[in-house]
Amino acid sequence: MELVAELRAVVPVDRVLDDPDVIEGYLQDHAEWAEYARAAAVVRPRSTAEVQAVVRVAAERRVPIVPRGAGTGLSGGANAVEGCIVLSFESMAEVLEINEAERYAVVRPGIVNDDLRAICAERGLWYPPDPASAPWSTIGGNVATNAGGLCCVKYGVTRDYVLALEVVNGRGDVVRLGRRTAKGVAGYDLCGLMVGSEGTLGIITEITVRLRPTRPPERTIAGYFDSVVAAGEAVSAVSASGVIPSALELVDRHCLEAVDAWKNMGLSTEANVVLLGRVDTPGHAGEAEARTVLRCFEEAGATWAAVSSDEQEAEALFDARRLAYPALERLGPVLTEDVCVPKALVPEMLARIEKTAAAHDTLIANIAHAGDGNLHPLLITPIGDEDAKLRAQAAFEDIIADAIELGGTVTGEHGIGLLKRGGLRREVSQGVLEMHRAIKTALDPLGILNPGKVFS
Amino acid sequence: MELVAELRAVVPVDRVLDDPDVIEGYLQDHAEWAEYARAAAVVRPRSTAEVQAVVRVAAERRVPIVPRGAGTGLSGGANAVEGCIVLSFESMAEVLEINEAERYAVVRPGIVNDDLRAICAERGLWYPPDPASAPWSTIGGNVATNAGGLCCVKYGVTRDYVLALEVVNGRGDVVRLGRRTAKGVAGYDLCGLMVGSEGTLGIITEITVRLRPTRPPERTIAGYFDSVVAAGEAVSAVSASGVIPSALELVDRHCLEAVDAWKNMGLSTEANVVLLGRVDTPGHAGEAEARTVLRCFEEAGATWAAVSSDEQEAEALFDARRLAYPALERLGPVLTEDVCVPKALVPEMLARIEKTAAAHDTLIANIAHAGDGNLHPLLITPIGDEDAKLRAQAAFEDIIADAIELGGTVTGEHGIGLLKRGGLRREVSQGVLEMHRAIKTALDPLGILNPGKVFS
Repeated sequence: MELVAELRAVVPVDRVLDDPDVIEGYLQDHAEWAEYARAAAVVRPRSTAEVQAVVRVAAERRVPIVPRGAGTGLSGGANAVEGCIVLSFESMAEVLEINEAERYAVVRPGIVNDDLRAICAERGLWYPPDPASAPWSTIGGNVATNAGGLCCVKYGVTRDYVLALEVVNGRGDVVRLGRRTAKGVAGYDLCGLMVGSEGTLGIITEITVRLRPTRPPERTIAGYFDSVVAAGEAVSAVSASGVIPSALELVDRHCLEAVDAWKNMGLSTEANVVLLGRVDTPGHAGEAEARTVLRCFEEAGATWAAVSSDEQEAEALFDARRLAYPALERLGPVLTEDVCVPKALVPEMLARIEKTAAAHDTLIANIAHAGDGNLHPLLITPIGDEDAKLRAQAAFEDIIADAIELGGTVTGEHGIGLLKRGGLRREVSQGVLEMHRAIKTALDPLGILNPGKVFS
Repeated sequence: MELVAELRAVVPVDRVLDDPDVIEGYLQDHAEWAEYARAAAVVRPRSTAEVQAVVRVAAERRVPIVPRGAGTGLSGGANAVEGCIVLSFESMAEVLEINEAERYAVVRPGIVNDDLRAICAERGLWYPPDPASAPWSTIGGNVATNAGGLCCVKYGVTRDYVLALEVVNGRGDVVRLGRRTAKGVAGYDLCGLMVGSEGTLGIITEITVRLRPTRPPERTIAGYFDSVVAAGEAVSAVSASGVIPSALELVDRHCLEAVDAWKNMGLSTEANVVLLGRVDTPGHAGEAEARTVLRCFEEAGATWAAVSSDEQEAEALFDARRLAYPALERLGPVLTEDVCVPKALVPEMLARIEKTAAAHDTLIANIAHAGDGNLHPLLITPIGDEDAKLRAQAAFEDIIADAIELGGTVTGEHGIGLLKRGGLRREVSQGVLEMHRAIKTALDPLGILNPGKVFS
């Protein structure tokens, strides 16, 4: 029997797509520079049993499976490999339970991050991880990549909120990992191991996330700087002050100009670099923290800085940060970096990025979760300019080398996918890569789960 | 060559102990009920290279290695297996680096928890995980068991603070796992996998822990209750209130009496059950939280409750909590439970424990990290009473069964070791156990690392 026919024999026929024009939309994520290939079929399962049925067919035939959320990834992790089955979770998006007393939610992987956050907010609960893709990206994809976001600097990343998972492993078994209690050490942390494994160790079919009570209102501190290095020094000063901000974001001139060109916000006439800090400690203590952050900005040489008394004005500034990426995409293909360095070395890393941009004659814009030391240099090339693309790729490698030299990592929150496989090899030793391979073989002995991602 | 002679050939001779009387002190942890066997030798390495040399000898000869911190574990995880080499880390206790700007510390595994905390405190930094064994237990042991403690309810467990590890794996390779940056998703979370793996996947030789700024002073709320169930309802009420306390501990009548009998603190004449809450939110917001906790205590039927204005008085109450375990040990062998249940089910679980105590005619005292739902029923049997021991073992199994039935786990923070292996088999599915075995084989193909612990 043909693969598609067999899939239609084990799951309802409407779940299986094989029209090439329809499939085309499922073949890649937002990493425009990463390769992708043709899929044999796309399956949109509606239950764990359907996922299991598909995995069993794939295991029998040794056909690769590429799981996929909303395709907002930036490393090629969801890109199709030749002849694969793409498993798209758009039809598995239910909230199964919100437990207010224990503060957790049980959801299917296809639910969109912002949708979960909105449902939680109605109950006085908060799901913190807030990647910039939150309006579109799914919790399943967030878990597969261990997504970060703006509030990580105070509240941690996706892994810190994943209590339990239901997973279909490479043998087609359904297993439940983790727990629903506040603590638990029964056996290995297989739940944590799945988080960030980019679909290479198991296919996530249900997720239990820890929630927090709704947080107090935030105060916003904005600062304008002449240079990214001065802004980087303000970031180091905040880190050294002992204040843990609830966000600390950097947006550079190139981003401000792109946002202005698109949305006419007038930001780039005011500043070369904008730093946006937030604190959410309640009461007088929060006021004191905001003043400390303000002082850090001023002492680092801000040309203007203020604690915002106007929530709308503050939101507009954060909108500019969120719009930076799509605004830059309008200028041409964007190659996104995601290095993370020690916080004190943010100014040094930003200075090196500027040098790299000049050395390779490449436009590099910067947005950054600066408070975490997580920088997103965005390499932009004019459409169709192949020389510029080669120069950008050389710059990309230099940035990775600099991050590793400064004690950093090649990926803070986007994942390895396809684009950072070389970076992973540079970051970790041969022994660590061998441990990766051994674990991959242990949990996916047939090698059918998202093969070729993270490492080849 | 004999094993001991070969060990003395690869590490300095003074590192290797083989005098049976000396070795005797290295054969078991504090799990008095767990089996242990004779070791062939104890090695006290002083460097990673020495650990690696020992592992290579063990690998060559297929001799088991049992790593050991201070031996304060309560599940038998550090107990010697027949003919093993015990690796004791007392001579590897250095602080290698405290980085104030990035807020991390790099230490050797043998450093005592309280010693690290004291060194951090001198620099305005705080290492949160605070198991009750903190004055004696080592960071290496804490990491191997993913130790919890009093402040977990707000600040999380050991795993949440482990940024990076140096590990000697079962092949004798030295690998560095994790990172020193705030975020990072380069490859699988092998660092997190090592945490809580109880020495079965690798031997930890260096640990990088995340630190926090020194926290604000705490406010203590004490409440006296007539019954554990009423106290359990106060715990549920605090959880539902949205306040996240920085500690919420329960001490029952049996503990209070044992502490009084030892230290004459006069607590047991005042209360049947004491609940100790703490909040550390600064300023007015913290005052409001303390009042909320107080109201929860009062509404659940506290016979007396107050926000302590006297830090010495508050510390005395927490001392009573810390002394409960050693005070009970004076009465006879203690079999320690460590179940964790959903917070709202703490009253139900406490009620079931009371019934179990009556049904098996066994003295069961309770201390609990109640705010996490992590209960420590302590089963005490008179010295030499074998019948009582059998009854206690039956009660132990019933408590495990009840915890699982209530959606809980058999171990919240002590680990599986030897005593909870049956519990693990009851808690997780066959498929999950198979994943454990596959990972164990992948990382320790010769099966020499703490064999027989966690699962057989």
